[in-house]
Amino acid sequence: MKLSGGVEWALHCCVVLTTATEPVPAARLAELHDVSGSYLAKQLQALSRAGLVTSVQGKAGGYVLTRAPELITVLDVVAAVDGAAPAFVCTEIRQRGPLAAPADACTRPCPVARAMAGADAAWRAALRAVSIADLARGVDEDYGPTALGGIRSWLGGPDGDAPARE
Amino acid sequence: MKLSGGVEWALHCCVVLTTATEPVPAARLAELHDVSGSYLAKQLQALSRAGLVTSVQGKAGGYVLTRAPELITVLDVVAAVDGAAPAFVCTEIRQRGPLAAPADACTRPCPVARAMAGADAAWRAALRAVSIADLARGVDEDYGPTALGGIRSWLGGPDGDAPARE
Repeated sequence: MKLSGGVEWALHCCVVLTTATEPVPAARLAELHDVSGSYLAKQLQALSRAGLVTSVQGKAGGYVLTRAPELITVLDVVAAVDGAAPAFVCTEIRQRGPLAAPADACTRPCPVARAMAGADAAWRAALRAVSIADLARGVDEDYGPTALGGIRSWLGGPDGDAPARE
Repeated sequence: MKLSGGVEWALHCCVVLTTATEPVPAARLAELHDVSGSYLAKQLQALSRAGLVTSVQGKAGGYVLTRAPELITVLDVVAAVDGAAPAFVCTEIRQRGPLAAPADACTRPCPVARAMAGADAAWRAALRAVSIADLARGVDEDYGPTALGGIRSWLGGPDGDAPARE
């Protein structure tokens, strides 16, 4: 089981966007992270489709968060990039073979599916309990306010007003 | 993110093995579940490599659990079949680009990695809290004792002493 690598990039981009005072072009985010612009654009588009960021058009355009970072959870970002489907899919094994349970006796998920769904719920609850604002606070706690502050300055720097295109 | 489909088969096989009074040939488990013998053998071999089942050789051979089903957790089976690696892999994005954090300031996982690790731990804890014995009890609770009892009889039935080969 492996999450899409895009999840990590998308979360880092969201944290960066919490500190931006202006829309941030995808190319600027890619430069900051030293990653391919087209790869990062794909993750930003997934965030956009999920309504977590929006792309502001125009000369000073770029990406912005659509709501306060306290209101965007890590789960929101994970689901936007990796999909919302649970990792375990029940194929109703109990209804197979010579001793198959009849379908009308299978209205409730089987014990195996219940155990897997319980773990999935615990995973989602943990990711829902952390917001993008929490992550940004964590960066401040780890490195002091100059870390995100430095990114803010860099984003607004000499190349910060380059034409914003995804 | 998707778990290997083998996880579901392996869990169902383990539940079946709790009720068997003799070693169960892989072919018999495949017949019970109406699934390809070679596919199921692959999952049983993964369980065997992880030390959860063992293959008894000989005419009345087959698979048995290596310990009491109370002592085998769902997590043991998931890790045996799907691997024990966490779903999220941190690639140290913070150490990239023009504002890279220096490596010696990165001894602790970053806030993103910590959030993802926390969710992974919650998922594992939930899977560790359920044993194969719990799953078997769940089947009894859902369907009454005749369900696993019926499987026990079937396993010991006329074909039950067919040559046991994986």
